[in-house]
Amino acid sequence: MTDTATNMRLKLPVTCLILEIILIILFGTLVQYDYETDAKEWHEHVHNNSQIENDFYYRYPSFQDVHTMIFIGFGFLMTFLQRYGFSSVGFNFLIAAFALQWATLMQGFFHGMHGGKIHIGVESMINADFCTGSVLISFGAVLGKTSPVQLLIMAMFEVTLFAVNEFILLSALGARDAGGSMTIHTFGAYFGLMVARVLYRPNLDKSKHRNCSVYHSDLFAMIGTIYLWMFWPSFNSAITAHGDDQHRTALNTYYSLAACTLSTYAFSALTAHDGKLDMVHIQNAALAGGVAAGTAGEMMLTPFGSMIVGFLAGIISVLGFKYLSPILEEKLKIQDTCGVHNLHGMPGILGAIVGAITAAVATKDIYGDGMADVFPDVASGDVSPTDQGVRQAISLAVTLGIALLGGLIVGFILKLPIYGAPPDTLCYEDSIYWEVPGEEAAHEDQMTTVRVEESEKLNS
Amino acid sequence: MTDTATNMRLKLPVTCLILEIILIILFGTLVQYDYETDAKEWHEHVHNNSQIENDFYYRYPSFQDVHTMIFIGFGFLMTFLQRYGFSSVGFNFLIAAFALQWATLMQGFFHGMHGGKIHIGVESMINADFCTGSVLISFGAVLGKTSPVQLLIMAMFEVTLFAVNEFILLSALGARDAGGSMTIHTFGAYFGLMVARVLYRPNLDKSKHRNCSVYHSDLFAMIGTIYLWMFWPSFNSAITAHGDDQHRTALNTYYSLAACTLSTYAFSALTAHDGKLDMVHIQNAALAGGVAAGTAGEMMLTPFGSMIVGFLAGIISVLGFKYLSPILEEKLKIQDTCGVHNLHGMPGILGAIVGAITAAVATKDIYGDGMADVFPDVASGDVSPTDQGVRQAISLAVTLGIALLGGLIVGFILKLPIYGAPPDTLCYEDSIYWEVPGEEAAHEDQMTTVRVEESEKLNS
Amino acid sequence: MTDTATNMRLKLPVTCLILEIILIILFGTLVQYDYETDAKEWHEHVHNNSQIENDFYYRYPSFQDVHTMIFIGFGFLMTFLQRYGFSSVGFNFLIAAFALQWATLMQGFFHGMHGGKIHIGVESMINADFCTGSVLISFGAVLGKTSPVQLLIMAMFEVTLFAVNEFILLSALGARDAGGSMTIHTFGAYFGLMVARVLYRPNLDKSKHRNCSVYHSDLFAMIGTIYLWMFWPSFNSAITAHGDDQHRTALNTYYSLAACTLSTYAFSALTAHDGKLDMVHIQNAALAGGVAAGTAGEMMLTPFGSMIVGFLAGIISVLGFKYLSPILEEKLKIQDTCGVHNLHGMPGILGAIVGAITAAVATKDIYGDGMADVFPDVASGDVSPTDQGVRQAISLAVTLGIALLGGLIVGFILKLPIYGAPPDTLCYEDSIYWEVPGEEAAHEDQMTTVRVEESEKLNS
Repeated sequence: MTDTATNMRLKLPVTCLILEIILIILFGTLVQYDYETDAKEWHEHVHNNSQIENDFYYRYPSFQDVHTMIFIGFGFLMTFLQRYGFSSVGFNFLIAAFALQWATLMQGFFHGMHGGKIHIGVESMINADFCTGSVLISFGAVLGKTSPVQLLIMAMFEVTLFAVNEFILLSALGARDAGGSMTIHTFGAYFGLMVARVLYRPNLDKSKHRNCSVYHSDLFAMIGTIYLWMFWPSFNSAITAHGDDQHRTALNTYYSLAACTLSTYAFSALTAHDGKLDMVHIQNAALAGGVAAGTAGEMMLTPFGSMIVGFLAGIISVLGFKYLSPILEEKLKIQDTCGVHNLHGMPGILGAIVGAITAAVATKDIYGDGMADVFPDVASGDVSPTDQGVRQAISLAVTLGIALLGGLIVGFILKLPIYGAPPDTLCYEDSIYWEVPGEEAAHEDQMTTVRVEESEKLNS
Repeated sequence: MTDTATNMRLKLPVTCLILEIILIILFGTLVQYDYETDAKEWHEHVHNNSQIENDFYYRYPSFQDVHTMIFIGFGFLMTFLQRYGFSSVGFNFLIAAFALQWATLMQGFFHGMHGGKIHIGVESMINADFCTGSVLISFGAVLGKTSPVQLLIMAMFEVTLFAVNEFILLSALGARDAGGSMTIHTFGAYFGLMVARVLYRPNLDKSKHRNCSVYHSDLFAMIGTIYLWMFWPSFNSAITAHGDDQHRTALNTYYSLAACTLSTYAFSALTAHDGKLDMVHIQNAALAGGVAAGTAGEMMLTPFGSMIVGFLAGIISVLGFKYLSPILEEKLKIQDTCGVHNLHGMPGILGAIVGAITAAVATKDIYGDGMADVFPDVASGDVSPTDQGVRQAISLAVTLGIALLGGLIVGFILKLPIYGAPPDTLCYEDSIYWEVPGEEAAHEDQMTTVRVEESEKLNS
Repeated sequence: MTDTATNMRLKLPVTCLILEIILIILFGTLVQYDYETDAKEWHEHVHNNSQIENDFYYRYPSFQDVHTMIFIGFGFLMTFLQRYGFSSVGFNFLIAAFALQWATLMQGFFHGMHGGKIHIGVESMINADFCTGSVLISFGAVLGKTSPVQLLIMAMFEVTLFAVNEFILLSALGARDAGGSMTIHTFGAYFGLMVARVLYRPNLDKSKHRNCSVYHSDLFAMIGTIYLWMFWPSFNSAITAHGDDQHRTALNTYYSLAACTLSTYAFSALTAHDGKLDMVHIQNAALAGGVAAGTAGEMMLTPFGSMIVGFLAGIISVLGFKYLSPILEEKLKIQDTCGVHNLHGMPGILGAIVGAITAAVATKDIYGDGMADVFPDVASGDVSPTDQGVRQAISLAVTLGIALLGGLIVGFILKLPIYGAPPDTLCYEDSIYWEVPGEEAAHEDQMTTVRVEESEKLNS
């Protein structure tokens, strides 16, 4: 029943096992506990037995919120497709579990090395989850059209490029991007869109009847949406500086999302058929406020500024779904299954621009001694606020460049006919990679009833 | 296909956009970071660089639990209706996103003003979510019979009255109500019940076939129930004083809920048809222990006392569903879709009474120096414990009065035929306000199979 | 329609009410707030008004994660059965609410007594949830074949034996088992398997058609899986020592689970039919890495070691589902509904062995002053690391002995024909204990359509 080409009996185990064994070997040679997770080192460092100063207590609750966004949020958001729930949650789970390990190494290489070793703790765990988020955004663009092996290979390359881009932005250019409007959202979206472009399927309409939701699948997807929405304040604040920074970032994101939700509902009803709300908009565009607050969230954006940003993000996102996505598909041949351009792409760029402007207008009068946390290079006098704004803008351009170029190359790698990608007729279909149980027995009982009744009618 | 009256193309966008723009303007003029979220102020205040003393670390994990209750808990609890899942989660999302912004302003007016500005941080975020909870309780009473515009208007008025009532109770009367047995549950329930009374529909039985659950919708609703149940200890303890107070409140609520669950199962089997458990009871009554511990949870109620309160709350709630709800509907013409009277109304009153009694018997011997946190006016000698108990009892009466009177007035405002409320024949139906996808394709495939088979039989 | 024997109208209420009233009386006589939840005591103890040192802030976020695993994780994991969702979530809810109260008392008797009183706070709440987890593991083995009364009786005995075993291991033998590879997982699994053995039903194949999943039930189950997976780091670290210990345990568990996920996917595709992934493996085996890191997670296992442990756990678990479970059922007559032997049994034993080895090779050079937190008896010089390893190994043997013997006795108690267990023909069926709503009305509408169309065809 299964095509040999898409049979995963050897391809998937070989890929998983080789990748995991490489990971284990590299962890064995390169990775160490940092001083806050190491029994000996922590006990040498801790002052006055003040255990609460361990970074675990500052960041672990936020980490678990981020973790929930990665595995429940992204996973269930993509279950909206009627026959792709197993793959949405299941492949999300697989590639995230791989990516977070690989990201630990790649991010460690670039900014966690201490005497030849990568030091890890709760902050590296959050960063690994962040990098994973970027991969899952790209997954959204190619959802339903890729094999799990393809996705693992994509994750491997994307994590690497993510770490390179992140290093250039945060270390080389000195940009600020705590919630990842650029590093996570813009990067993940444009990388994924370019991969989708290269993997363009002219005959995808053969699977068109499966590329839509059903009633229950939309409810499952709302679980993903709501978790992403609720925990976005934790996402944006997870690695900002202790104290006012984490506090302020969460607050800004909270109000950005709330404003975004109202503009999303408004524009969904305004643009959709018959004035009825469209679940696609609600599930996605209502989250754009979190994306757009990713860079400036830690800055003194004010609740007022946050709400304006969120408000605009919601509008841009709904309009993107309504008017831009069809154009991307028809003209640019980008088949963006989840509309990541509307949720992560454009709002990510908006977030980057807002971040650049907010940085450029920063003053000592507003930030006080808190300047050192938000803009350390400005506080130390190395750069002016305007220069910091320019850095932020350059960072956006760099991110777009690396994402698009990287997506192009990786797209061609993924196009090789060796990964068992589904044929055009079987996209968006779980049963190609999963043992799928029958539909509900109770319905079959009802079917039996129908048949029995009809037979009786025929006989009478 | 859609009735012009219920068409939301203009009504909903206009309402959402006007409300959000007003919110943004008011935030721009009135709202500021508090000293713990402001970069400059925090760095001036913080002692010995002790970032962990920022209130963020005391309250943010509880805030996220409360947030989850508001958006997942309330949202999914209401998905039990077979064809109203989009509206339950979706309108819950919309009105909560609006209400939390409006509540920030209203509560700020009454108890957060500093030099003409409203100061906000994690505590105001929790309070805004609390106020939102009250609106969502009222939503439960009118679920399925109201348009999103009606709900937004209701939220606007209810948040305002909530803030007035809360001010009278906590500031003017000096009552204690950390978990909101009175301010949130009693207020939300009786306000909603009165609105439902005014919006009484004599011909609602035309939609009766939709006002019930199906197998999967009950499972979705259980997601809501379990989240509310698990996180209620965080809800009741979210804004109590730091230290033993938060700790004790969580503990009391935990045991109250556990005891409530056992009495709920007992009385569900005892009263329901054929000794079978009724999902309505499990989904709702098992939560009454959290409601009833809302006032006294922070007091020295003891685990023993908490369990008795929870035990009684479960019994009252199940009996309410079984015997009182039909009477309310037939005699008092209150069509209470979710039975909020049984989950929030009566258990809220029970909680208020328990709070009054517990306050009245407080002694310095039991509370020690902790008295200042729980009953500051008693600790300072301003009132006796008995007087504090009387204040609590008066507060219950005030709450009931404001809720009923407010609900009456707002009910009449909502009765105006301009909001696009659904006709009697289309209550509890998503497709009136949402683009609803077809039922599951797989089933349609099975249908096709049946048809094909039948045709073959006919032809043979 | 309901058999008198399985009618719960009196059996369930009587059991619930008697148990709860006993609990309330015992709490009234025996239970007190500990010094961190008591208003007076805390205010006498707290130094420099440092409220953040209250254990609440160290452990409450972890507690809520554990709580989520118990109620959402276990509850929804078991909803995979097509017609047993109400019972899976609902009985999980009931027996957990009971067990956590009973566990507070039983664990308090053995290691929480102070002057004749049981002192409780957040740590006892976590321990009570842990003990409850053990009962829910056993529930998994007998899922679908037991009445709620049977389950409550089982919980009562199992909690008691759990507390005895835990006391012997942690207090008498001085073993370490923070995440409960032995006390929770091994104990719960083998206890449940022995109960399942005693309750063996030779004619269970009469319900075979219900003992499988449907598409949506597998998605609900994935909610349970993902929550268990995400929050396992919190589970294993919830009661470890403050500081580096909690931090390190969470980190080790995170990497163990990630590695486990990749080996699970690899072996699922390798062993399953047609190279397709099997949801049973993904839902269960991917969690084995958390179980296997339960004992050694707090030790200096290193990320490298954690990944090896998780990698092996996933392999063992998948192979168990594929090859061992059928043998257990056919040869040993153990009908293990959820395959708890593969998820909790074998990985639990693996975790115990890894813990023994890791303890035996502990050195002062690696642990430094942190030795006192992880191995207090080694730090104080009472035992050598090797002896500690031997203690750990003996603890595994003791646990297996008590679990199997306890399960045998309790199994026979549960076999008495007085609890209303379902007949062989009605196992895995909600409607025997629950009011179950019809299937989806919309489908019935479609059915109507089919019938109408067919009639028209017949008439034409």
